[in-house]
Amino acid sequence: MKVEVVAIGTELLLGQIVDTNSSWIGEQLALAGLDSHYQTKVGDNPARMEEVLRLALSRSDAVICCGGLGPTQDDVTREVIATVMGVELVRDDAVAARIETMFASRGRTMPANNLRQAMVPVGASTIPQQPGTAPGLICPVGPAPNGQVIYAVPGVPYEMKEMVEGTVIPDLIARSGEPAVIRSRVLRTWGTSESGLAEQLAGRIAELDGDDGGAGNPTLAFLASGVEGLKVRITAKAPTEDEAIAVLDAEEPIIRSLVGDIVFGVDDQNMEAVIVSLLAERELTVAVAESLTGGYVAGRICAVPGASNVFRGGVVAYQRDIKVGLLDVEDGPVITEGAALAMAHGVRRLLKADIGLATTGVAGPDEAEGQPVGTVCLAVAGDEAERSATVRLPGDRERIRQFSTITLLDLLRRALLEGRFD
Amino acid sequence: MKVEVVAIGTELLLGQIVDTNSSWIGEQLALAGLDSHYQTKVGDNPARMEEVLRLALSRSDAVICCGGLGPTQDDVTREVIATVMGVELVRDDAVAARIETMFASRGRTMPANNLRQAMVPVGASTIPQQPGTAPGLICPVGPAPNGQVIYAVPGVPYEMKEMVEGTVIPDLIARSGEPAVIRSRVLRTWGTSESGLAEQLAGRIAELDGDDGGAGNPTLAFLASGVEGLKVRITAKAPTEDEAIAVLDAEEPIIRSLVGDIVFGVDDQNMEAVIVSLLAERELTVAVAESLTGGYVAGRICAVPGASNVFRGGVVAYQRDIKVGLLDVEDGPVITEGAALAMAHGVRRLLKADIGLATTGVAGPDEAEGQPVGTVCLAVAGDEAERSATVRLPGDRERIRQFSTITLLDLLRRALLEGRFD
Repeated sequence: MKVEVVAIGTELLLGQIVDTNSSWIGEQLALAGLDSHYQTKVGDNPARMEEVLRLALSRSDAVICCGGLGPTQDDVTREVIATVMGVELVRDDAVAARIETMFASRGRTMPANNLRQAMVPVGASTIPQQPGTAPGLICPVGPAPNGQVIYAVPGVPYEMKEMVEGTVIPDLIARSGEPAVIRSRVLRTWGTSESGLAEQLAGRIAELDGDDGGAGNPTLAFLASGVEGLKVRITAKAPTEDEAIAVLDAEEPIIRSLVGDIVFGVDDQNMEAVIVSLLAERELTVAVAESLTGGYVAGRICAVPGASNVFRGGVVAYQRDIKVGLLDVEDGPVITEGAALAMAHGVRRLLKADIGLATTGVAGPDEAEGQPVGTVCLAVAGDEAERSATVRLPGDRERIRQFSTITLLDLLRRALLEGRFD
Repeated sequence: MKVEVVAIGTELLLGQIVDTNSSWIGEQLALAGLDSHYQTKVGDNPARMEEVLRLALSRSDAVICCGGLGPTQDDVTREVIATVMGVELVRDDAVAARIETMFASRGRTMPANNLRQAMVPVGASTIPQQPGTAPGLICPVGPAPNGQVIYAVPGVPYEMKEMVEGTVIPDLIARSGEPAVIRSRVLRTWGTSESGLAEQLAGRIAELDGDDGGAGNPTLAFLASGVEGLKVRITAKAPTEDEAIAVLDAEEPIIRSLVGDIVFGVDDQNMEAVIVSLLAERELTVAVAESLTGGYVAGRICAVPGASNVFRGGVVAYQRDIKVGLLDVEDGPVITEGAALAMAHGVRRLLKADIGLATTGVAGPDEAEGQPVGTVCLAVAGDEAERSATVRLPGDRERIRQFSTITLLDLLRRALLEGRFD
């Protein structure tokens, strides 16, 4: 069953509001195993709204229409849907009474405008959930049982969500007659390029797609997430949730065996959360000395609830004399792995941590110590073990600082997994 | 001139990524005075992508096509556009060389896959800006001068933005032949609510709109930007750029006189950039002691090019014993303004700065020292002057840390403007 989403509102086209509603609805449709091939944004213009709705009905079985149900003159979704249905609008007294009660309960009298919200296309039914003044509508188009349907829900996110979860999705699943569920799992990676990942997984993707080249089960997809790395999404379709999850559980180890230890986390698990839990498991504490990252490394670690169990603190040694005076770095060039290691050991001693981390390098805009912009030295140092690296990072000042941060955290992750500090 | 936006990517339909690109592009089109009536999201499916592009060309003069330019097999935007143009794809050696150089500069060899990104439709030209490996494309459809055009830009936001600002919008304005120039100026504020700002400016907005209730010149709009505060955008339309800027220059002081010193910056001037220039003008240096913000304050100051002239460094004193041992904070409760002031003076002395900044408080999830989540103490301390504040901030752990950061920077801004440290 194909379901299309239409978001209505000129403010969406003007970029004054980001349309998060369509994304959320798309996610719910996918989880319900309902296909959704198009999402359209259109302004509060009756002619264009009608054109978009007719197009959607020409290629999908159902349309979820979001927004334009308010009380003002430019809220015309009700009128447009009635036109597409070929019916009139009639006043629904039950809805009118409900709206009047809402205003009364807030000690206010209902503006006459709000009665527009009680106008319902003939043959449409209202959605029982109604957290706000705008009623949601179920609008059949064409004769049952094979007719199509337009659902109208408000653009206010919490009102929309209550109606979509409570009525629209269950109604769609009932109409679709095929109770399939879709579940997906995201493996988060750091340290390879999208094309490199694609090459590692090309064979597996071909296997899954089968000879017909059609989408197999599960399917694999890549999501580039900038400074958060690359994500591999495994999506499984099955009659029940348990079976879908079984498919994911079977596929995950296959993918991991193909891509290796670049996988650092699963689903919402970001790099800093992984670091904090790895340190906690090993009962190790960490401290950070930062030059070009200027606090980003410490800032990300502290973003994790419970960081206080493993994070001692940090020093932002932005000036040379602080590296030398406070962290015992030898006076001399400071954009070297040696300096990074000295900073890491220095902060480890100063803040009494098991492990010290350090960054030093050239964020730009100008080069430094004859080193080009993007040259970054990273170090992880413990009492008896240490690791360091020099990398060349692309992009502007901000991206270089962000990439340095996650690259250092990944260096620590690998060292911890290798048992360097056990 | 009508311009339509098409966002490509199955992950957008599945709601795994929110399509912020289309919103941003829509905003740029509006600022340029270009009409945009539809935005469509479609998955990585050649047949449906072609259908959507042909539909867009049937009702708009130009199409901005966002995404699907990556190196992997499911990035098929290049192929689909070539089909719509009715031409072949040819390898662009200059682009291929540019991509190879990018990999080389990072000490990596280019995966063969990336050569897909050098394939360009016959008759298309590449967009000069190319921050990543994906080249943007300008693809004429139909004979000039009245032909239509499809612009292809990557889905990676920073790559897309550089291309749209640098080439797509100017090219569209040139094609539109519209004499009118639209320029806008954003006044960035911190420290008031949207409704408060609306009340302060209601009278002026009414004046500008005039009796007809239509949009006047200039127009005012509010943009809520979360942790970056509230923005007041002044937009002027005039025959020439000089005249448009004259309108902005005349309006800006009127707005400032109405809202007062909550305006901290203009256009892209963020809080940290303002701080760094205020410090540089006064030849003052600063150091930061951070507890709950854990490096965010230092990290934002270091994000400004030239920060090294005014920023000494920082200490992330996440643990009590570091506050006491390294910053000379009295042992006792540390979520107090007194502790914040002690931290500020301590870091100022330790890192030899003119001014010390400090944050201490409860980011959550749990309360601390009997103080509820969101309680934050901030301090700014110089040799002879000091200021401190205790605030109750809303939101989750991350928002509390972000709001603490900009609130402290604004406290420093006001102190500097009041000449506290001159």
